[in-house]
Amino acid sequence: MAGPRVIPVLRHADRLAAAQALLRERGVAAFLLGVGADLRYLTGYEAMPLERLTMLVVPADGHPSLVAPRLEAMAAALAPAVRSGLVDVVAWDETDDAHALVEERLGRGGGGVGRHDRVLVSDRLWAMHVLALQRALPAAEVGLASELLRELRMIKDDDEIGLLREAAHAADRVIAQIAAGRLVGRTELDVSREVRERLLAEGHETAEFAIVASGPNSASPHHSASNREIRAGEPIVLDIGGTVGGYCSDTTRTVWVTGGDPNQGPTVAYRRLFDVLLEAQAEASSAVRPGVPCERIDAVARGIIDAGGHGPEFIHRVGHGIGLETHEDPYIVAGNAEALRPGMAFSVEPGIYIQGRYGARIEDIVICGPTGPDVLNESDHDLWVIPG
Amino acid sequence: MAGPRVIPVLRHADRLAAAQALLRERGVAAFLLGVGADLRYLTGYEAMPLERLTMLVVPADGHPSLVAPRLEAMAAALAPAVRSGLVDVVAWDETDDAHALVEERLGRGGGGVGRHDRVLVSDRLWAMHVLALQRALPAAEVGLASELLRELRMIKDDDEIGLLREAAHAADRVIAQIAAGRLVGRTELDVSREVRERLLAEGHETAEFAIVASGPNSASPHHSASNREIRAGEPIVLDIGGTVGGYCSDTTRTVWVTGGDPNQGPTVAYRRLFDVLLEAQAEASSAVRPGVPCERIDAVARGIIDAGGHGPEFIHRVGHGIGLETHEDPYIVAGNAEALRPGMAFSVEPGIYIQGRYGARIEDIVICGPTGPDVLNESDHDLWVIPG
Repeated sequence: MAGPRVIPVLRHADRLAAAQALLRERGVAAFLLGVGADLRYLTGYEAMPLERLTMLVVPADGHPSLVAPRLEAMAAALAPAVRSGLVDVVAWDETDDAHALVEERLGRGGGGVGRHDRVLVSDRLWAMHVLALQRALPAAEVGLASELLRELRMIKDDDEIGLLREAAHAADRVIAQIAAGRLVGRTELDVSREVRERLLAEGHETAEFAIVASGPNSASPHHSASNREIRAGEPIVLDIGGTVGGYCSDTTRTVWVTGGDPNQGPTVAYRRLFDVLLEAQAEASSAVRPGVPCERIDAVARGIIDAGGHGPEFIHRVGHGIGLETHEDPYIVAGNAEALRPGMAFSVEPGIYIQGRYGARIEDIVICGPTGPDVLNESDHDLWVIPG
Repeated sequence: MAGPRVIPVLRHADRLAAAQALLRERGVAAFLLGVGADLRYLTGYEAMPLERLTMLVVPADGHPSLVAPRLEAMAAALAPAVRSGLVDVVAWDETDDAHALVEERLGRGGGGVGRHDRVLVSDRLWAMHVLALQRALPAAEVGLASELLRELRMIKDDDEIGLLREAAHAADRVIAQIAAGRLVGRTELDVSREVRERLLAEGHETAEFAIVASGPNSASPHHSASNREIRAGEPIVLDIGGTVGGYCSDTTRTVWVTGGDPNQGPTVAYRRLFDVLLEAQAEASSAVRPGVPCERIDAVARGIIDAGGHGPEFIHRVGHGIGLETHEDPYIVAGNAEALRPGMAFSVEPGIYIQGRYGARIEDIVICGPTGPDVLNESDHDLWVIPG
């Protein structure tokens, strides 16, 4: 199997230039980005999330620098944006004050960060670093990088869509493999472990999550796989994902295991519930096109589920953006009036959950194409009735 | 294989009581703990790290509550501390203001958070939540939970040590399995993927990292596995870890692959370097006992490596605490004069890195026992010379 596509090195130059243009346009002094998706987006650098500070300092004008622990310096030097000279590495030693070093780099860029200046930190920067930066830059106002970077990261280019598609197809294959195997008599945890192994075998670098929610546990949207043994005559919600080339997969299918006994098929009530869900998911996806507000996609699914009598049991938004993070902008939720634009990528995943009994969910990753939806997941959306 | 031990449910009652006692003793209003190790430590609740706020509110007096998204409420209800009535779940809906809800829960506990009151947030709480809490609690001073919780989490009890030992032994088995297999001609990435699969197969719930650093890449302590093909006649640093029952493994062994050719064994220079490292690692571990300052363990390893002529090439501290997080207090580093106490768990992992050529590292997890070290990893510390 060929390795996944990669983002071309020169793309990072475009992204950094666009990020700096946004800073200047909005009068923000700098981005201060820790380990995570923003750093990967702008530099291609994938660092381990550790307590030692790694921080990309992107001033509105001038050369960005990557403040990194000495022991990471060699790894940092291999990052695409560093190798191509877009970003300098500034290494710090174990007993240095890394946050003071960030302040110093900022100072060099544009004469220091003054009162009322704003700096934007990555949304997932750890509190230990946020508080230390607030102390190191007492005059600055600290905000979130997503305020500006969302404008860039929300719109996926062809390479990003290509990676999301590869990841989606790999996850589709894993769902099919799991459904083809034995399930009845095994624990959720055991199946969950198999999902993770198969995600890796199908080309994921990481297997981020593997929800296996059987029987009554399927009524819990984020159930964590337990020691419960799967039985014939019940549904299982499989919600799995990881990363391919840094981009995330996230798909859900619901299966019903009969144990090979035709009398253990789905009940009439469950089948009815599932048909409502199936229609809601299909219609919500079909509603995707440029200009449609995010909340409309949620409302389409919710309207159908309400009409089917399951409104109070659809207890979450219909979707979330996806890319370098499993959940990112845009959120497909009531109250988000932002219009869809071509290149936006997000999940469409209505669910119905009946406490104490069972639940169901169907999830695809959908790209907003120029004229309509581009659904990345290709596996059957219907309830999979299988021997298990 | 039997599942791993688990922490007894009642332990959470003791931990919560101890945490509240610390708050009262130091005059702090509350802990505000997001998803992560502090939450797992106090409640046994393992939540998915998502952008929706999940927050354990622990006031100095009164009942703690767990603010959780509605769709997580069923999972939260299964957490040991919730099931046993120690903590109440407060669910919020997709369009609610979760941070205001935290403020409200705090207000109920003790008449509100006033000026100069301190609240302590989990060290890894994401910036999006830190900034939102600072807005919701404008009068409060926000600090880090580790300031107090480190006192509890640093000292492992017998169950925690048991889980760390299980995790260490599972990682030892994976190292042995990898060393017994084929390595030459494969890429680092391919071997790294096998490490992750084997960690899961040996009972880890998660495979957190799998550093496979071959040839010149072994000079980069946190090298991420690449497409480089492993060749005969070079060293590979294997640094692997994950979690068993929530507790982390983290072990490093260095192998030398000959490809089965006796002329491709370690060079004299490398063997000399490795002997220095081997002695440094062994002596640093042997120095572990109650009352010894953390920095002394670092100094023991550094003294031997300095004397061996490799001082400038040992570019990181000798170790880090380990438990529910791979890196936590106590840090075994110059400048940390804190005395070791029985029950402290940490890595001892000196390394020598010669840029452009090669490197080596040996890492064990060590418990400070009542009279000396309890080394959890049992695999051979010496350079593994293998066909590969």
